[in-house]
Amino acid sequence: MTTSTVASAEVAVVGGGIVGLAIAHALAQRGRQVTVVEGSRIGERAAAGVAAGMLAPSSEVDLSDPRLTDLALAAHAMYGEWTSALTALTGVGTGYDATGTLLVALHADHLAILQHLYDFQMERGLPAERLSAKAARDEEPYLAPGLAGALRMPDAQVDPRRLLRALPIALERLGATLHEGMRVTAIAPSDGGDYEISTERDGAASTLHAAKVVVAAGAWSRQIASPILGMPVVPLPMRPVKGQILRLRGERIIQHVVRTPDVYLVPRDDGELVIGASMEDVGFDERSRAGAVHDLLREARRAVPGIAELDLVECGVGFRPALRDHLPAIGNVDGAGLLVATGHFRNGVELAPITARLLADLICDDRLDPLLEPFAPGRFAPAAPAEATR
Amino acid sequence: MTTSTVASAEVAVVGGGIVGLAIAHALAQRGRQVTVVEGSRIGERAAAGVAAGMLAPSSEVDLSDPRLTDLALAAHAMYGEWTSALTALTGVGTGYDATGTLLVALHADHLAILQHLYDFQMERGLPAERLSAKAARDEEPYLAPGLAGALRMPDAQVDPRRLLRALPIALERLGATLHEGMRVTAIAPSDGGDYEISTERDGAASTLHAAKVVVAAGAWSRQIASPILGMPVVPLPMRPVKGQILRLRGERIIQHVVRTPDVYLVPRDDGELVIGASMEDVGFDERSRAGAVHDLLREARRAVPGIAELDLVECGVGFRPALRDHLPAIGNVDGAGLLVATGHFRNGVELAPITARLLADLICDDRLDPLLEPFAPGRFAPAAPAEATR
Repeated sequence: MTTSTVASAEVAVVGGGIVGLAIAHALAQRGRQVTVVEGSRIGERAAAGVAAGMLAPSSEVDLSDPRLTDLALAAHAMYGEWTSALTALTGVGTGYDATGTLLVALHADHLAILQHLYDFQMERGLPAERLSAKAARDEEPYLAPGLAGALRMPDAQVDPRRLLRALPIALERLGATLHEGMRVTAIAPSDGGDYEISTERDGAASTLHAAKVVVAAGAWSRQIASPILGMPVVPLPMRPVKGQILRLRGERIIQHVVRTPDVYLVPRDDGELVIGASMEDVGFDERSRAGAVHDLLREARRAVPGIAELDLVECGVGFRPALRDHLPAIGNVDGAGLLVATGHFRNGVELAPITARLLADLICDDRLDPLLEPFAPGRFAPAAPAEATR
Repeated sequence: MTTSTVASAEVAVVGGGIVGLAIAHALAQRGRQVTVVEGSRIGERAAAGVAAGMLAPSSEVDLSDPRLTDLALAAHAMYGEWTSALTALTGVGTGYDATGTLLVALHADHLAILQHLYDFQMERGLPAERLSAKAARDEEPYLAPGLAGALRMPDAQVDPRRLLRALPIALERLGATLHEGMRVTAIAPSDGGDYEISTERDGAASTLHAAKVVVAAGAWSRQIASPILGMPVVPLPMRPVKGQILRLRGERIIQHVVRTPDVYLVPRDDGELVIGASMEDVGFDERSRAGAVHDLLREARRAVPGIAELDLVECGVGFRPALRDHLPAIGNVDGAGLLVATGHFRNGVELAPITARLLADLICDDRLDPLLEPFAPGRFAPAAPAEATR
C-alpha cells in the first residue's frame, strides 16, 4: 500500500460528529486553517444523529455532577445565539425551540423523583415550577389523564440532524476542509515538529500533517493508535453506551418536551416526534432490539397515549462516548499540540458549542477556562509512585 | 395520450399478488398462453409480501365458515407437493415447514378460547393435541414460564416472500409474460369477441387483448372500471383491511409457529421471525402506527419473552382484500370470459394453490368444483324482484 501525503493544516480535527464539527467551526471562525477528518459520512455514525437534542441542564441537575451542570448552564446561555449565527451563515434552520420541558409524574414513585429533582433545582437556584395534574393537562391536553403532577422547566431543544447538516455548510463557507469516509488510524509527532496523521480511505493510505490535532471521535476515540507508545493515542477509559431511539411522524400533539423518569418525547416543528432512549452497555451492537423498542413505546404511550396514532418511521441506534466517571475529557493530552474533546456521553449536543468555544480559547489564546478544569484528560493517568513506596 | 396495442393473450391475469401469480402458473402449466399485468413491482404491494404464511385450517376452524375450512383443508393437502414442484422448477426454496403450531394460553381467558377451538376441532375431526404447560415448554423452552396450557396442531407454514420470488421465475420458465408497473384501468368486451384491457405505465397508455381475463387484484380489484357499465368491472363490496406485521431477526428461538389468541410468531429457517398482525378498518393507510407496533411487541413478548433480544428489522403494512362476508369471490363474473379471484382476506397465501387449481379447471375444462360453489362472485348481486312485488 503506497502512502500519499494529502495536505497540511494548522489544526486537524479527528471526528465529524457534533463536537468535532463545532470545534472546527469555532476554530475556523477565529481564522484558523482547519481540516476535519471523519471515518464515515457526516451524520452516519454520529451519536448526535440519533440524539433527541434536549438542552436540559435543569431537568438533569439531580443526575449530574455539579461541575457538569455548570458547563451545561454555560452552554444553555449561549445556545440560542450560537444556532442563530449558524442559521444566518448557512441558511439552515436548527430547530432551536425554547418552549420548555414538562417533566411528568404518572404515579407516586415518579412524584417522589420529581420532588427530589425540584429540591436540587431550588438549591442550585434553577428555575422550575410545580404544576398540578390539571395545570399540566391545560398546557398539554394529550398528556395521560391519570397523571400525578408535573414540573415545568425552561430547558430548550434543538434538532441534532439539522445541526449536522448546518455545520459542514458553515465550515465550507469559512474555508475549512472536510474529508468524509477517511479513517484516522494513527497519530504521531513528526520530525518536523508537527503531527503526522495516518489515514485510510477505500484501502488507500495517506498522511496529513497538522501543527495541532484535536481528537473528537466520540466512542471511537480509543481506536486511533500511537505508533510510538504502542497504545491508543488517547488512552482514556472509554466505552460505547448504546442508545435506541424511535422517530415518529404525524400531527404535532405536544408542544413541550415531555419527560417522565422513564422516557422522553421531543416534538419538532416538522411533525417529527423523537422518543428516547435506552441505555445499554453492550458494546458496538447496532441491532435495534425489539425489547428496547417495546419499552420505549410502552413508556411513551403511558405519558402521551395519542402517540399510538403516529407513524413509526425509524428505529435508531447510536453510541454515546462514556468515560469511567461519565464526564467529558476536554483539553490537552501531551503537553504539546495534541488535544481531545470526547466522553460527552448523553450531553454531546448540549455541550458542543461550549466545548468548541473553550477549546478554541485554549488552542488560539492558550487560555484554560476554569469551567474546563474538572474535565482534564489527565485525570485518568496512573498516579506517579509516591516517594514512600520506593 | 396515444394508445398502443401491446399484445394479445389467451388469458390475462390482472394482479401479480400471490393469488394472481398462482393462477397464471396453473394456467401456464396447462399450456395456456398467459399474461400477468401488475400495477407495481411484484411483491411491492402484495398482501402476501407482509403475510406470515401460516397454513392454518386447524388453528382457525372456530373462526371460519365451514365451507372456507373445506377449501383450506384442500389447500393444506396439496401445499407440500405444490411448493416442492415450484422449487424443482425454479430452484427457489419456499420455506414450507410442517413442524406445526402451538396455540398457547397465557391465562384462564385464553384457556377458555383454546377449549372452544378444541371442541370445534374434534367436531370437524381435525387433529389437535392438548398439552400441559410443562409439555408445551418442553417443546419450546422459550415460551413464557407462567403459561396456562397449549394446543398442538399440524398446521404448516411457508415464506410468502419466497413464493413471490419463485412464482415469477416459474412463469418465465413456462413461457408466460409478466408486465410489472403496468396499471389496468379498464376492462371491456371488444368487438372482436375478446376483452380489451386498458393499461397505463409511466403515463403511456396501451391496450392488451385476451380471450379470458381473471381479475385477481386483491384489495384494489374494485379500482378497474367497466367503461360500458360505468362502474367497477368487478362490482364487489370490497374493502382493504390493513395489517401491520413486524419482522425480527436473530437466533431462531422457537421451532413451531407460536400463537396466542392475541398474536402469532412465525419462525423461519433463515433466522427471521414474523410477528403479526393488526386488523384495522382504516382504508389504504400505509403508516406503520406506533400503537399497533407496541401492541404486537407486547403480546409477542408475553408469549415468548426472549424476542426482546432480537433485532427489529421491519415494520410492514399490507392490505387484505375483504368482502362483506369475509369470504373470497372465485369464479365467473359475466357469464362469458371475465373471471375473478379476490377477497381472500387473511387466507390468500393459504388458498392460492387451491384457488389456482380450481380456477384453471373452470377456465380450461369448464368444470366448476363443488368446493367453489359457496364463493360464487354473483352472491352479492341484488336479488331480482320477486313476482309477488310487481
